[in-house]
Amino acid sequence: MISFNSDYLEGCTAEILDALNKTNLEQTEGYGLDKHSERARELIKRKIGRSDVDIHFVSGGTQANLLTLSVLLSPYQSVISADSGHIAIHETGSIETTGHQVIRVKNDDGKLNAEDVLEIVRAAEEDYTARPGAVYISESTESGTIYSLDELKALRKVTKDNGIALFIDGARLAYALESTKADFTLRDIADLSDAFYIGGTKCGALFGEAIVICSDKYKKDFRKAMKARGAMLAKGRILGIQFETLFTDDLYFRLAREANRKADEIKNAFKAHGIRLYADSYTNQQFVVLSDAQAEKIKENFSFEVWGKEGDETIARFCTSWATGEDAVNALKDAIKTL
Amino acid sequence: MISFNSDYLEGCTAEILDALNKTNLEQTEGYGLDKHSERARELIKRKIGRSDVDIHFVSGGTQANLLTLSVLLSPYQSVISADSGHIAIHETGSIETTGHQVIRVKNDDGKLNAEDVLEIVRAAEEDYTARPGAVYISESTESGTIYSLDELKALRKVTKDNGIALFIDGARLAYALESTKADFTLRDIADLSDAFYIGGTKCGALFGEAIVICSDKYKKDFRKAMKARGAMLAKGRILGIQFETLFTDDLYFRLAREANRKADEIKNAFKAHGIRLYADSYTNQQFVVLSDAQAEKIKENFSFEVWGKEGDETIARFCTSWATGEDAVNALKDAIKTL
Amino acid sequence: MISFNSDYLEGCTAEILDALNKTNLEQTEGYGLDKHSERARELIKRKIGRSDVDIHFVSGGTQANLLTLSVLLSPYQSVISADSGHIAIHETGSIETTGHQVIRVKNDDGKLNAEDVLEIVRAAEEDYTARPGAVYISESTESGTIYSLDELKALRKVTKDNGIALFIDGARLAYALESTKADFTLRDIADLSDAFYIGGTKCGALFGEAIVICSDKYKKDFRKAMKARGAMLAKGRILGIQFETLFTDDLYFRLAREANRKADEIKNAFKAHGIRLYADSYTNQQFVVLSDAQAEKIKENFSFEVWGKEGDETIARFCTSWATGEDAVNALKDAIKTL
Amino acid sequence: MISFNSDYLEGCTAEILDALNKTNLEQTEGYGLDKHSERARELIKRKIGRSDVDIHFVSGGTQANLLTLSVLLSPYQSVISADSGHIAIHETGSIETTGHQVIRVKNDDGKLNAEDVLEIVRAAEEDYTARPGAVYISESTESGTIYSLDELKALRKVTKDNGIALFIDGARLAYALESTKADFTLRDIADLSDAFYIGGTKCGALFGEAIVICSDKYKKDFRKAMKARGAMLAKGRILGIQFETLFTDDLYFRLAREANRKADEIKNAFKAHGIRLYADSYTNQQFVVLSDAQAEKIKENFSFEVWGKEGDETIARFCTSWATGEDAVNALKDAIKTL
Repeated sequence: MISFNSDYLEGCTAEILDALNKTNLEQTEGYGLDKHSERARELIKRKIGRSDVDIHFVSGGTQANLLTLSVLLSPYQSVISADSGHIAIHETGSIETTGHQVIRVKNDDGKLNAEDVLEIVRAAEEDYTARPGAVYISESTESGTIYSLDELKALRKVTKDNGIALFIDGARLAYALESTKADFTLRDIADLSDAFYIGGTKCGALFGEAIVICSDKYKKDFRKAMKARGAMLAKGRILGIQFETLFTDDLYFRLAREANRKADEIKNAFKAHGIRLYADSYTNQQFVVLSDAQAEKIKENFSFEVWGKEGDETIARFCTSWATGEDAVNALKDAIKTL
Repeated sequence: MISFNSDYLEGCTAEILDALNKTNLEQTEGYGLDKHSERARELIKRKIGRSDVDIHFVSGGTQANLLTLSVLLSPYQSVISADSGHIAIHETGSIETTGHQVIRVKNDDGKLNAEDVLEIVRAAEEDYTARPGAVYISESTESGTIYSLDELKALRKVTKDNGIALFIDGARLAYALESTKADFTLRDIADLSDAFYIGGTKCGALFGEAIVICSDKYKKDFRKAMKARGAMLAKGRILGIQFETLFTDDLYFRLAREANRKADEIKNAFKAHGIRLYADSYTNQQFVVLSDAQAEKIKENFSFEVWGKEGDETIARFCTSWATGEDAVNALKDAIKTL
Repeated sequence: MISFNSDYLEGCTAEILDALNKTNLEQTEGYGLDKHSERARELIKRKIGRSDVDIHFVSGGTQANLLTLSVLLSPYQSVISADSGHIAIHETGSIETTGHQVIRVKNDDGKLNAEDVLEIVRAAEEDYTARPGAVYISESTESGTIYSLDELKALRKVTKDNGIALFIDGARLAYALESTKADFTLRDIADLSDAFYIGGTKCGALFGEAIVICSDKYKKDFRKAMKARGAMLAKGRILGIQFETLFTDDLYFRLAREANRKADEIKNAFKAHGIRLYADSYTNQQFVVLSDAQAEKIKENFSFEVWGKEGDETIARFCTSWATGEDAVNALKDAIKTL
Repeated sequence: MISFNSDYLEGCTAEILDALNKTNLEQTEGYGLDKHSERARELIKRKIGRSDVDIHFVSGGTQANLLTLSVLLSPYQSVISADSGHIAIHETGSIETTGHQVIRVKNDDGKLNAEDVLEIVRAAEEDYTARPGAVYISESTESGTIYSLDELKALRKVTKDNGIALFIDGARLAYALESTKADFTLRDIADLSDAFYIGGTKCGALFGEAIVICSDKYKKDFRKAMKARGAMLAKGRILGIQFETLFTDDLYFRLAREANRKADEIKNAFKAHGIRLYADSYTNQQFVVLSDAQAEKIKENFSFEVWGKEGDETIARFCTSWATGEDAVNALKDAIKTL
């Protein structure tokens, strides 16, 4: 059985294990103040092309989201998200747990658009409506799609015009940046948002995300916020070493490029066989619509994520990652031909 | 420069790195439902001698504390802690962030006693006083001391009599259990508390703590609470593999025993040289009172944690761990003789 | 200009002012422990027909909602509400401020139905979904409609079967109970819910609501919760005196009956003139669909609440209350005839 | 039995009841936007001598404290209070319920001093310490004492220098301002704080406090915060009418002056009889130390608040208010002579 269920099925890219092995007996300071974390920060800043951002490493995506949004939002403010957004439906009410309302907007192919944001902002003048303080988007989205540079700029404009923070969930940022359709750079992401995070867990690391604070007003006491949320690792170096490795020789990006290429092959195999795409993704997540019979057939040798059911059809998600073998892809392609 | 600053200076015990290497390409389910996490749970339950506890792995101690207490406490309830407790002074108000008051009680050698708890509980009948819902203690304490079995039983009695939960922070539980003065077992810890955690970060793991829920009433939906607090690792196996390793062949306990033995040698060296102990610790943390001149002298080749200052004396903490070398201990012992 | 905008335009029924005058110089205990509050509790219990409920007086509806729900919900639980519910859209995210998610369900004439609740409860098994801990409904609803006894029983069944609390917002409970279509009693409300409140602010009082806790498990420390939320009035007697007055000689119900009767007359005048009802209300709130021209015409002498716009039509709300004069109703009826 | 237990034993000053009667049938806008609330705001601003402050009316002191502090504090910040402060010990953990730590500092005659504040601020640089975001003081204090102008200026300086908000709980501000020892004005209070409140409940009103926001940065969306905390009264006019009355012809201040004068007489009677003062108060609360025998003797005809016990002595609080009769004072004075 070969699994294409997710991009966090295996451990991590070999280079990270090597680095953990090599550095294991070094004695370092705790709480992310060690030299590996510092070097990782430097490498990331260099890649972004800005030295004026603050970088903090945390252990997972939900943590990155709730921690950063709790800093971006003033008391009593709400956050706007697509109704398909991770914070809207996959995080057990974590944002509400921090005391903030999530305003869920009907998504368009996994995305939120600037017009909808503006409409909500305008409707919030009444005393009985919470004030939106941040917009949350994912790049790439939960549907595998990506925001174009123009879409990002439109969201930046509407948020800036209205004094609202823009936060980008980059759990799969590597795949977005390396998508053949991407017309934006890592620098654009930094310049167009107040904060974002660079996902490690789903892009080659054992675990870990790098939160990047781009706007000065949210920098002070972020480490205190981390500590208060239980998000500051005692041996912060474990996260530093991983990002140091991923940002050496562009490993992070090379892994994503390969995964995207494999996802593309799988997509093309489905298309060639006349199977309908559920979303037109150019990243590592591919969504296709299978008849229940086809789904059953594939399940004999492969597993995938059932994203939904529509009558007697199954919406299936196939993910690739740094760990997806060429053999696995070829086997799946062969199986597709037999459907 | 050899550091005795803390017990989280290095990476992790070699067996864990081996296990991570060996399992790296396995494809497993996420979120702690994988076979390694399951096996780790089994091994821990076996060691406790109870199959009716629930076990959850999280990435750090502050997270374990705030998550578990937020489940143990009903809305509006407070938690009682020694004023030296980790949640009282070292976690940036994390408990208050979850909406609960921490009632700080003057500590006695790092410990909280049952009489003081009873007094606070009795004073809480007034409408204007928050109801204590839990007692928080650490075993071993922040001063390296340990609660005796009788002290634990007294706390269990006062909490049970008053319908209050007892939570034990086990960041350094291994050292407490392996202390030559310990008169309690892991089973006692489980039987005398509603929940506790088995610390990994400071006892040989890369990172991670195993929360053990002992009382049925707190078991339901704990995973939802974990997710909501950003405490559920996507690749939960990383935690599972570590605890699977630590609880194979009693590695966890052997590491602590060794560290305690080395701490004992250091303590005896200080005592033999006439240097006063700040606390009478039989675990891996030793606190001594140095003249400023002595402190300066040691700092030439060793680093330690400055715990406080009293006039022209320095309270110094020396920690050992799985990673403390015999050479380092001998070098420190030699240096002590020259003070 | 005569206003029909809301049912809280004036002060209070004359009997309450009399009672405040008469009792003004009495010296009483604070915080709701005075004899007037005690007597008000007795009168309400007698009217309900149950002596085993707890009653607490607070100053407003949003406060009653957020306080009671924060007690009914365990940590991390969500509350289910119609998307037209007061907590869903008119309270500035107050429930989220207390750390709980509000799950908004498409309303059916202002109401929530048991099938939709069940569906949400079933979908909440996944770890990434918050567990619903309470259902919130209003009787009468924000649309002036009322739940029938069967509907209430169905909601009670689905909540009880699933271990969920049922909370009834009774801001306008008097009008619901006195509706000509009501097939339930105050006793039914108490027997079918875990907690509800009897609205004073919109039903004749200066301000104030009486929260009734019907299920034992939510009774303990409710006063502490009140105090912690700033909901315990120092001179609690001010609330006690009002409810003592309202529940003497059925004043509360008589006021509502009269207001309903007047609302009915207004409704019939609109119907007789061929004007469409927006909702089929038998309580003190009437919603009609006016052409913009009709709306402008009425506005010359009357004010009403604009509930929404549909093309060139205006949805208008007309409210009656204890203070609505017979003259005002007749003047409005005359005006309707000229539309 | 004549009670001197507190300053909220009776209803309200007659002028307020008159105003409520006179205005009862006026139809006004809700939520504090009515003409009486507007006029009350104008009168208060005129009395302060500043037109650039924002004023909001809420129903009680705990509500005023938790609401205002939750706006003054950024996420994760703590508030510093004397350990005798109302928020520290008399509000059931309400501030913690909003997610903020209260740092309790040993009081000096009910007061907090600038040096202690500075020390805490300096100690908060460590990551594991919450950042103080506000200082909370009461004028007059819970011990009846008052801060001098110099003390207020010192607190203003230390808070301003460190970017911290200063909040003054004015539950008994009238008594402080009218104290014979007061060397500050209402304008000073406004100029030296970021926000404060003018207490109504304990100074002649039925209930209600007027929150004054003095610093621009906390003004935006305060009404939304009020609504979210359940602190916005539907019939806001009830509060507006009360403050309109109290600030007409200086009624508020005249009532306090009289109460202070009576308290002074009582104090002098105790002193003349050789009974020790527990605190040297020049406001409406007097604290004396009675032998248990004396306490029993007084209790035959008078009641007072037992503030504490010291061996066989009772610390007794005697309060006066607008409602304290000349006869009651004389009777107490006579009784004191017989002790």
